[in-house]
Amino acid sequence: MSDILDNIYIVLVETSHSGNIGSTARAMKTMGLSQLRLVNPLQPIDEQAISLAAGAKDVLENSCIFDCFDDAIADCQLVVGSSARLRHLQSTLMNPRNAGESVVERAKQGRVAVIFGRERVGLTNEELLKCHYHLNVPTNPEYGSLNLAMAVQLVSYEIRNAYLSLEKLQKDQTKSPLVEYPTAEALEYFFQHTEKVYRDLGFIKNDAMMLKLRRLYQRTHLETTELNILRGMLSAIEKS
Amino acid sequence: MSDILDNIYIVLVETSHSGNIGSTARAMKTMGLSQLRLVNPLQPIDEQAISLAAGAKDVLENSCIFDCFDDAIADCQLVVGSSARLRHLQSTLMNPRNAGESVVERAKQGRVAVIFGRERVGLTNEELLKCHYHLNVPTNPEYGSLNLAMAVQLVSYEIRNAYLSLEKLQKDQTKSPLVEYPTAEALEYFFQHTEKVYRDLGFIKNDAMMLKLRRLYQRTHLETTELNILRGMLSAIEKS
Repeated sequence: MSDILDNIYIVLVETSHSGNIGSTARAMKTMGLSQLRLVNPLQPIDEQAISLAAGAKDVLENSCIFDCFDDAIADCQLVVGSSARLRHLQSTLMNPRNAGESVVERAKQGRVAVIFGRERVGLTNEELLKCHYHLNVPTNPEYGSLNLAMAVQLVSYEIRNAYLSLEKLQKDQTKSPLVEYPTAEALEYFFQHTEKVYRDLGFIKNDAMMLKLRRLYQRTHLETTELNILRGMLSAIEKS
Repeated sequence: MSDILDNIYIVLVETSHSGNIGSTARAMKTMGLSQLRLVNPLQPIDEQAISLAAGAKDVLENSCIFDCFDDAIADCQLVVGSSARLRHLQSTLMNPRNAGESVVERAKQGRVAVIFGRERVGLTNEELLKCHYHLNVPTNPEYGSLNLAMAVQLVSYEIRNAYLSLEKLQKDQTKSPLVEYPTAEALEYFFQHTEKVYRDLGFIKNDAMMLKLRRLYQRTHLETTELNILRGMLSAIEKS
């Protein structure tokens, strides 16, 4: 499980203030993230950065510096770029919660990059186009000026939430036996069987009724044992 | 709706660094919160605070300073205290998501305080006892040193999430007609009717079968129209 978090790379692009790099390292480590990549930072990792990193100095020491954006994401299977600008991005837009879930899901298999742009102007359009998804924090429409390290804190928090949920799910699964669910085909047989029996009884006279019954049973996520009971009930009616 | 956010007070107790007060103001405003209360700050609102508040100077200007903890929460109906220490608090513990939901729910009716303690030592046990609930951010067990303003940012973000969900819910409710659900009594009649019909058919022979059927239909949250269809089906069987 812990290698999932090690597959998640926080990438800061052309950060102006070294203090933000330090605060980012601290924010990451409080949520269990350790992989930091810096694309062309405008200030080096200096005393200010180390001071603000507090107990997360190791994250700074292990960080990697890249000359260009493409190199920093080259080995990643999923690239999520954060942006305060929404236009043109509707179809690939995620809030932090959904992004956290997607990032953790994909980090099971490979490296994932979550990218944060320059303090004032964010990521360029060209950089945004190189991202699979775009992450936007739903801020106050009248004041959306989220500090860079704060944005990293929020996203890292949602990554940790998703990670803890996955961990809990896996524990629960090892505890309780797996429930069996019917195939779509088996469910379809059941619907056809139901329709036949109740048409013969004169109860079903139009398609609307079956649509309502389909909606009801699809919503329930019938288990296999439950489906067997319902089919047994239909057979009992037929026999009489 | 917007008066909900105005009912939510962020309270900082004996903050050591004025910079944290400024960053807190900025964090609050990005999430639409504006009410800041300070209990005995160790540094005044100085240039450092104003500089880090950036565009949220108004939050600092409107903040109120209190001499003691009790006065700062006196007019609040719900008091949530944040704490990194968990012991003795299990029954009143919340994560930021649940806290955001509870805070917004209660802020519909009255004032709510969310309290953050001193940078190094948090809230005292006496202060924690005066809180209805206790909020804990699920941090990295090996490094849980969340900066004060970062903690305020996370909690404010969850308050905003809960607020946006409530806003969406209210919009949806005005758009779509309300679904009617049956009473527990009506559902009980259905279960008894089912049992009678299928016992007569010889399909139900023991109580285990009815338990499984009850579980299935309880889980579905049957709507009234759906229940009427199911009862119609039972009557159709009886008639034949």
